[in-house]
Amino acid sequence: MEKKVLGRREAMVRFEESPIYVITDEGQSAGRGNLTVVRAALEAGAKFVQYREKKKALRAMYEEGLLLRKLTAEYGAALIVDDFVDLAMLIGADGVHVGQDDLPAAAVRELVGDDMVIGLSTHNKEDLTEAVALYRQGIIDYVGVGPVYPTQTKDKPAPVTGLDYVELAVDTCAETGLPFVAIGGIKEHNIGAVAAVGAEHCAVVSDITMAEDIGGKIAALTASMKKFALI
Amino acid sequence: MEKKVLGRREAMVRFEESPIYVITDEGQSAGRGNLTVVRAALEAGAKFVQYREKKKALRAMYEEGLLLRKLTAEYGAALIVDDFVDLAMLIGADGVHVGQDDLPAAAVRELVGDDMVIGLSTHNKEDLTEAVALYRQGIIDYVGVGPVYPTQTKDKPAPVTGLDYVELAVDTCAETGLPFVAIGGIKEHNIGAVAAVGAEHCAVVSDITMAEDIGGKIAALTASMKKFALI
Repeated sequence: MEKKVLGRREAMVRFEESPIYVITDEGQSAGRGNLTVVRAALEAGAKFVQYREKKKALRAMYEEGLLLRKLTAEYGAALIVDDFVDLAMLIGADGVHVGQDDLPAAAVRELVGDDMVIGLSTHNKEDLTEAVALYRQGIIDYVGVGPVYPTQTKDKPAPVTGLDYVELAVDTCAETGLPFVAIGGIKEHNIGAVAAVGAEHCAVVSDITMAEDIGGKIAALTASMKKFALI
Repeated sequence: MEKKVLGRREAMVRFEESPIYVITDEGQSAGRGNLTVVRAALEAGAKFVQYREKKKALRAMYEEGLLLRKLTAEYGAALIVDDFVDLAMLIGADGVHVGQDDLPAAAVRELVGDDMVIGLSTHNKEDLTEAVALYRQGIIDYVGVGPVYPTQTKDKPAPVTGLDYVELAVDTCAETGLPFVAIGGIKEHNIGAVAAVGAEHCAVVSDITMAEDIGGKIAALTASMKKFALI
């Protein structure tokens, strides 16, 4: 079992510093492996990376996860594992991200202890209300908010929420301090609109993983967010 | 996080006492839920039950797993969870069963601590040799040996091993003490042949889960094993 590198507090500092939350999708990486894509993203300054993999066997994910852990540590970046709490613990990830159909966040917190980030996907007002309660209890650290736009990177995405739900999250975040990242179909051509309603963090998957020039893409996404940001 | 009920040593006593290792498969349970099937098996004296579920979301498995844990505890039976180490830990299962493509057994042992059974699927001589080493290191507690016959309860089963591999496991068990359970396509009509080459434990899935009279089926399977047993 690998030791965590950043831990919960440091990882959330990286979250706050990151307008772009990078998520892997090897099936949409133009033939490149996750390690190649993540290395390019780290070179471009990415500090918060999620290892999401829906198709590989856990044994292969464990081997790859150890390498991703080593790589992200070299760049001082946080590594979050999607779904697999056991895998996250074993590879020394700084956090785990779970959805509404995964293990309940409160149970996950009992398992991982206090020093690990837990992110939770939310899709509507009810999810968000529950997430605020979990945040106030110290169970979760941030929420995903979406899918804002249609997405092809999940087999069974939740219904598209549009920008209205992002606006609700902006208000909720302002009131409660709950950090959130907008997610779902966010790309260079629409990220400005998401930033314009107040989102300070956007998760981007295929627009980064498919980019020929990953560094250039991250720079362009970041620039678009800044251009349209509320403040 | 639920407390374990039996723990490692007691659970392995149940394993040793059990000629039939019951494994759930709700997709092949004649429309009945896992709880109904498991209750009937426990009523018939089953003492070692594996919760295997490949299709439900983890949230649903968590809820069901908690109920299965409560139910098996009432009957003093061991509960083993297939594949999901995090789930096994959270519901207080007595053990977890992993395959060659799952998280490595040594890593799983680090995660679950000393008081939990780890079972490992093996499919050939190389797997078995490695398993003996893991057993001697105190990492695993038993192995699955098979698939002895063709099976429909796994999407991607390993190649059928036939009885030759069971015979090798019998010899290996005699030499090293490594407990094993034969698995894969074992039903009432062929379980005698498996017992006849020396297997003392057989995992049965659909022949039990599909049986109208689950208690009668377990009795018949047990009788067949006894009738053909080496000793």
